[in-house]
Amino acid sequence: MEYEEFTIEGRNAVMEAIRAKRPIDRLFILDGCNDGPVLSIKREAKKNDIFVKFVDKDRLDAMSTTGHHQGVIARCAAYEYAQVEDILDNARKKGEDPFIILLDNIEDPHNLGAIIRSANLSGAHGVIIPKNRAVGLTATVARTSAGALNYTPVAKVTNLARTIDDLKKQGIWFACADMDGDKMYGCNLTGPIGLVIGSEGDGVSRLVREKCDYVVSIPMKGEIDSLNASVAAGVLMYEIVRQRDIKK
Amino acid sequence: MEYEEFTIEGRNAVMEAIRAKRPIDRLFILDGCNDGPVLSIKREAKKNDIFVKFVDKDRLDAMSTTGHHQGVIARCAAYEYAQVEDILDNARKKGEDPFIILLDNIEDPHNLGAIIRSANLSGAHGVIIPKNRAVGLTATVARTSAGALNYTPVAKVTNLARTIDDLKKQGIWFACADMDGDKMYGCNLTGPIGLVIGSEGDGVSRLVREKCDYVVSIPMKGEIDSLNASVAAGVLMYEIVRQRDIKK
Repeated sequence: MEYEEFTIEGRNAVMEAIRAKRPIDRLFILDGCNDGPVLSIKREAKKNDIFVKFVDKDRLDAMSTTGHHQGVIARCAAYEYAQVEDILDNARKKGEDPFIILLDNIEDPHNLGAIIRSANLSGAHGVIIPKNRAVGLTATVARTSAGALNYTPVAKVTNLARTIDDLKKQGIWFACADMDGDKMYGCNLTGPIGLVIGSEGDGVSRLVREKCDYVVSIPMKGEIDSLNASVAAGVLMYEIVRQRDIKK
Repeated sequence: MEYEEFTIEGRNAVMEAIRAKRPIDRLFILDGCNDGPVLSIKREAKKNDIFVKFVDKDRLDAMSTTGHHQGVIARCAAYEYAQVEDILDNARKKGEDPFIILLDNIEDPHNLGAIIRSANLSGAHGVIIPKNRAVGLTATVARTSAGALNYTPVAKVTNLARTIDDLKKQGIWFACADMDGDKMYGCNLTGPIGLVIGSEGDGVSRLVREKCDYVVSIPMKGEIDSLNASVAAGVLMYEIVRQRDIKK
């Protein structure tokens, strides 16, 4: 397991973290702040034996890395990266065909957070990101994931192409998102699947793309080039949801 | 027509604006910057008789409202808000059933930009936003729309509920996005349609929701509450695309 030290900021994110029993070292709350959401957080914190410290706004601002703490910051031991095996276990436990999201160098933490959020809600079993270049699990990612990081395992691998090779041996098929691909509505996206999403600027790298079994595209009817990376990922994940639901 | 003064920042956004013949008053480029994308912008600017001024980084930073100018800022006369009638004209010209996105108080400019971007690519004929509270067409919105603002009309109305009433008289049906709704895959979303998306925190307001003909939901399979607003909008828009494509 790898560890990255970090804080969780914002009311929703902190509440979700407490409920998900994340190992919170200390909870910082704005002194004198007693509105409904903050009272709920205090109650949950007490129930879970979390040490709470009341501090002033300057102190919170200084601790904050996102600038959006909303009066609440939790300092966590760590967010653990999962192993690829944990993601497969997750699918096995649910008795479902594996549904994995692979991100080829997403650099914007807001996009990464939103993609983890969509992965959770579309029923994907986990997210795989590469070690180099791409953004990791920072506080901004945790916040924009809206709590999904507590439930959806994220694994970090050295070489995405090699990971794809390994997973293919276990019967997983890989679909790579690219504008040149076949329209997603006509592709069979049921069964064990890995969905590969490229970076904001460059798409999926050649090496990774060549490993994929098929290339799928979202129909583009407008004048501009491409969807936002997290929107494209969400649209493709939900096409997989639709096809899986019909098949049932 | 209403006007809002503003700048367009970032290489893609500026290039798109030039190509779309936006009325650019002056183009500011980082002095000494001569990489490929900037050379292309200079060439296009010359072709379109746009006045270019080379400035240093401090000057650009001071002008920038987004902090992400990438060495290029265009100062525009204005982004014009369209009228609702322009959106209907847009559909008529293309010989298509109207497909309109209505946003009930989206407050995050990144979400608004991403939604306009998705609206363009999903073939929607325009976006309608309310005057009060919601974010307008700021520089951040223009940048995150990745050029879509040049093509997709955005109208601003005083009262969203009243606009829905007016459009209903013209035969448009309204679908409101909400977690309590019917699963989107089972709803008939073909024909003239207005898709109503709620704000990040509160969803669609009661008054607007009551005007809608049906309520549709995205299946939620995970542990957390909701998708990012721009992802949810994108997923719903593409379900409409899918149903329209099948119908053809």
